[in-house]
Amino acid sequence: MNDRTILISNDDGVNAPGINVLAAVMRNYGRVCIVAPQEPMSGMGHAVTVRHPLRLRKLEEEEGFSRYSCNGTPADAVKLGIQVVLRSKPDLLVSGINHGSNASINILYSGTMAAVLEGVISGVPSIGFSLADYSYHADFSACAKYVRIVVENVLNHGLPAGTCLNVNIPPVAADRIRGVRICKQGQGMWMEEFDERKDPHNREYYWLTGAFASIPNGRDTDDWALENNYVSVVPAHMDLTAYPAIELIKKWSWDAE
Amino acid sequence: MNDRTILISNDDGVNAPGINVLAAVMRNYGRVCIVAPQEPMSGMGHAVTVRHPLRLRKLEEEEGFSRYSCNGTPADAVKLGIQVVLRSKPDLLVSGINHGSNASINILYSGTMAAVLEGVISGVPSIGFSLADYSYHADFSACAKYVRIVVENVLNHGLPAGTCLNVNIPPVAADRIRGVRICKQGQGMWMEEFDERKDPHNREYYWLTGAFASIPNGRDTDDWALENNYVSVVPAHMDLTAYPAIELIKKWSWDAE
Repeated sequence: MNDRTILISNDDGVNAPGINVLAAVMRNYGRVCIVAPQEPMSGMGHAVTVRHPLRLRKLEEEEGFSRYSCNGTPADAVKLGIQVVLRSKPDLLVSGINHGSNASINILYSGTMAAVLEGVISGVPSIGFSLADYSYHADFSACAKYVRIVVENVLNHGLPAGTCLNVNIPPVAADRIRGVRICKQGQGMWMEEFDERKDPHNREYYWLTGAFASIPNGRDTDDWALENNYVSVVPAHMDLTAYPAIELIKKWSWDAE
Repeated sequence: MNDRTILISNDDGVNAPGINVLAAVMRNYGRVCIVAPQEPMSGMGHAVTVRHPLRLRKLEEEEGFSRYSCNGTPADAVKLGIQVVLRSKPDLLVSGINHGSNASINILYSGTMAAVLEGVISGVPSIGFSLADYSYHADFSACAKYVRIVVENVLNHGLPAGTCLNVNIPPVAADRIRGVRICKQGQGMWMEEFDERKDPHNREYYWLTGAFASIPNGRDTDDWALENNYVSVVPAHMDLTAYPAIELIKKWSWDAE
């Protein structure tokens, strides 16, 4: 069982507390290799780096554990991890534990989940873990148990081809977590605004800011689960097709004159 | 009809040839406002900028037309366009014309489509246009006709809530285009590798490189349409949930001991 190779990445940076919590749990399941951005990359979405060269730096190596940083995005880190560091597909990819929720629409902006989707693209079973608490010194003590439950399920059952898991853990003490719910992606969104300021030369600049607002959309969403102190597990894939719209749109006028 | 406000963005930069072709067509349908990254942002995915302030620069303004650049990503540009420049929702958002395909898995990496999804999030009918030719001096002459066909359909019929369109145009002369096909997202992927080099100080660095390989997945995919000289139109949404997996995964062991 410890013959497995497990690749770990994140978007909060190679030394963030959350990745260390995840690595400590994963060492029970195989050889762990961390390849993660050297600096925080939250909000990077599925960015990849094609305009400047990538560097890889070995930070630690011991029996069954290694840690590398790269100067790229989470998606870059996974590509480098598979192709340059491991030089073969790992048995499992896990990403996180993210400092902050990746439920609902956040999956699109999330570097943590970009790393996971990059794993899926490479045909590796992949899971993203997030704690819905944005602080650097978040309390991860409730997380290990749920990481184990999810990982053991994936190792026992496998994941359907092309499907990954987006796991979010509510920011409450372990004894207040009510269990795990399998969900669909919620419809929450950021109610954003720009904080407009003037620099010392009287020129405007803007800081993106805002608050997350969940949009009630049923008890089967990840938003609902987190608000009600459940761990949410959303099976996700890379297909953005809005299937119900296909037949509708086919009826429009498509003949080129 | 010309009372409409149309926001245009892209990921190739505010002065790329493709955005000018798109703007010229769109001026027939309303007041055009371009807000786009000052520099090329291909491969930026759905990145947003939260760690440094954003700047906005007015480059042009005349009756019915304005052009702004920003120092952020395509998603930032759309947010700034709606909230700071227009200060209200436009009637339509169009993004592109991208220099290069955004069919298949490319939708995830695409800054052009991130701008479109950002429009959807804001409740604006949104369309992304791409020409499957990566060169800066690509021949856009076949594009205008198909932009008009798609835009007029959207203006006449509206788009279902939460749904946008990902339109890709094959890189061939207008008379070789066989028409429009409404498709699902294909399963092509990048067969990537890293070009490993050594710098003058003998340290390794890596360039991400690779070729796109479409994976045959039926005649109803955007990959197939483009390869067969059809314009592909994929209705897309922001929901990554793999619905068929939900019931399967619910049967796993989720009780916390």
